[in-house]
Amino acid sequence: MNYKIENIKQISITKPLKLDCGQTIKDFPIAYETYGKLNKEKNNAILIFHALSGDQFVAGINPVTNKDGWWNTAVGPGKAVDTEKYFIICANVLGGCMGSFGPKNINATNGEPYGLKFPVITIRDMIRAQESLLEYFEIEKLLSVLGGSMGGMQLLQFCALYPDKTFSAVPIAATASHNAQQIALNELARQAIMSDPLWNKGNYYKDKKIPKNGLAVARMAAHITYMSDKGLQERFGRKLQEKKDYEFTFDADFQIESYLRHQGNVFVDRFDANSYLYISRAMDYFDLSKQFKNGLVGAFQNHKTRFLIISFSSDWLYPTKNSKDIVIALNASGTNVAFAEIKTDKGHDSFLVNEPEFLETLKGFLDSNFEIFKNEK
Amino acid sequence: MNYKIENIKQISITKPLKLDCGQTIKDFPIAYETYGKLNKEKNNAILIFHALSGDQFVAGINPVTNKDGWWNTAVGPGKAVDTEKYFIICANVLGGCMGSFGPKNINATNGEPYGLKFPVITIRDMIRAQESLLEYFEIEKLLSVLGGSMGGMQLLQFCALYPDKTFSAVPIAATASHNAQQIALNELARQAIMSDPLWNKGNYYKDKKIPKNGLAVARMAAHITYMSDKGLQERFGRKLQEKKDYEFTFDADFQIESYLRHQGNVFVDRFDANSYLYISRAMDYFDLSKQFKNGLVGAFQNHKTRFLIISFSSDWLYPTKNSKDIVIALNASGTNVAFAEIKTDKGHDSFLVNEPEFLETLKGFLDSNFEIFKNEK
Repeated sequence: MNYKIENIKQISITKPLKLDCGQTIKDFPIAYETYGKLNKEKNNAILIFHALSGDQFVAGINPVTNKDGWWNTAVGPGKAVDTEKYFIICANVLGGCMGSFGPKNINATNGEPYGLKFPVITIRDMIRAQESLLEYFEIEKLLSVLGGSMGGMQLLQFCALYPDKTFSAVPIAATASHNAQQIALNELARQAIMSDPLWNKGNYYKDKKIPKNGLAVARMAAHITYMSDKGLQERFGRKLQEKKDYEFTFDADFQIESYLRHQGNVFVDRFDANSYLYISRAMDYFDLSKQFKNGLVGAFQNHKTRFLIISFSSDWLYPTKNSKDIVIALNASGTNVAFAEIKTDKGHDSFLVNEPEFLETLKGFLDSNFEIFKNEK
Repeated sequence: MNYKIENIKQISITKPLKLDCGQTIKDFPIAYETYGKLNKEKNNAILIFHALSGDQFVAGINPVTNKDGWWNTAVGPGKAVDTEKYFIICANVLGGCMGSFGPKNINATNGEPYGLKFPVITIRDMIRAQESLLEYFEIEKLLSVLGGSMGGMQLLQFCALYPDKTFSAVPIAATASHNAQQIALNELARQAIMSDPLWNKGNYYKDKKIPKNGLAVARMAAHITYMSDKGLQERFGRKLQEKKDYEFTFDADFQIESYLRHQGNVFVDRFDANSYLYISRAMDYFDLSKQFKNGLVGAFQNHKTRFLIISFSSDWLYPTKNSKDIVIALNASGTNVAFAEIKTDKGHDSFLVNEPEFLETLKGFLDSNFEIFKNEK
């Protein structure tokens, strides 16, 4: 990445955290951002979990990249997740590259960036690290946790680990474990990065020759999976890029080619290739059902959290079936669960774009749960 | 590629071929293979068109790679395409790397391999080059043309250009033009190849430092699209690769990871990276409807060819919708057309694997058309 991480909020986690891989880490930073104000009853707090390529800058302008926050469509004053009403917290995940402890951090023992010496982390490690934020803000119970895609994995893990720490939960376009195709797509991205000679087994920080080609290809591959074929066809079809006919070269003739190349190029400015490896690995390792005797049902047994599961009809990366499997487990565990499949052509990325039915559903759930939570507390 | 192209059959096309890009080529080789015997009535000939990564070695053992021919499941003695009954011809496409004129050929004007100086070709160029084979074998009219995936594109182009040169036609898992997602997936593969520093703008033949990393990533990406999520899940699921638990490294923990890496690695031995660029480009440029005033309907107006269109229910790369669009156009043009969607979990690759319903459908169509063709002739 090309940006300097400056002027961001961080907490230092001082208590040792034993990772799933067996290693223990301590005194490491977790970067976060907040939006809105915590009320004095402390019952308006929402924790948002970001996706693979996201960060803590949910709303407004990301102060590092100077671009829009990744969930500006949903979070802000008067929006579905209303920052005039709610207090929003979002942390950069462990392993990330926006200020939280990750592979580009310096290893104090030798003064070098960790690179591949950074421990392989899991979604559970990410959640255990983020839990300290509740302590930091002295929040006993969140109004809600929200998360799309990998954010949804974190959310499920959070609810399974800390059933009493949130009143409600909205996993969006999520899954409780990756299937073979989902692992394959992540492995494709990792191979694109690792086969770039500049990756150099993860040691590329010093001379700043970063594996941008590999990371760009990884991003292009991922980007294709975030959109539906119908959505791509409606937006790009076979439209040519500022030309009247084929040019019979390997330059971008089609608009979709230019678009993909652009997506790859801008991504390498803001993301660290090693972080991509670590975070995608955590997603592949995630299998919530394995953590409980009774499988996925056991993960939520006797929980009082109120769930709303949301999927998108044209999402082929985390299809509705993945969400329904969660709904089935929640039902079987006696948990309070609602489910909505939003009809849309916008694919997996539907949760990030302006999809009115989704945003209304989310707003309605949060606002009604806030009323109930206020009265209960 | 690592194999030497030896002991293969070639014809030299002496008559000038004006390519769609405007350049004219002549005295260039087209490599081919045949199976079975042409009968004296010359009414048992079938021309097969191969897919993106295929070659002329349809059946038996490929003499160059010593591996199985790519369509051994369908073509051979007693098989659906019975080599004891039919005479099978298959040519390596123009732009290919198994003996036909392609970017790794030597440019006589300077003694160097063409590389990117090879003209950008189209599916129509491929077909115009292959037509000479009929002349060579003195075949006036083929019994049938068969082709899956890009083979199906070639088939449609053949039928549109030479409506009287085949009695029947079976496009399998094909499309009459790429949509945005299909172009995006090819562009991803091209970017993987072109961003490998060893690709070196196509000049890598001399010192044999081939862009194998990029080509392997391209192949992995393609391979994911050839299988359905259900098929991948049934075969690999979350099974680990000869280990009991996660190893918390970036080695292949999951079987699907090993499988993909293997697919990438073996492909680079037999395929040329530049050929991949050229052939995938031809696929993206293909848009049969643009060649005719009346669109796709016009492509088949007043044709007597008997069509069987086959698609596979779990093929998401060339989904049934693509085939149905061809069926609709054929119907609108008054052409004799049958359509079969085969229910299977095997995805786009269904036509290459043992899928009994597909093979029986194909066999039935060929055998019955042979009877009709014999009587008509």
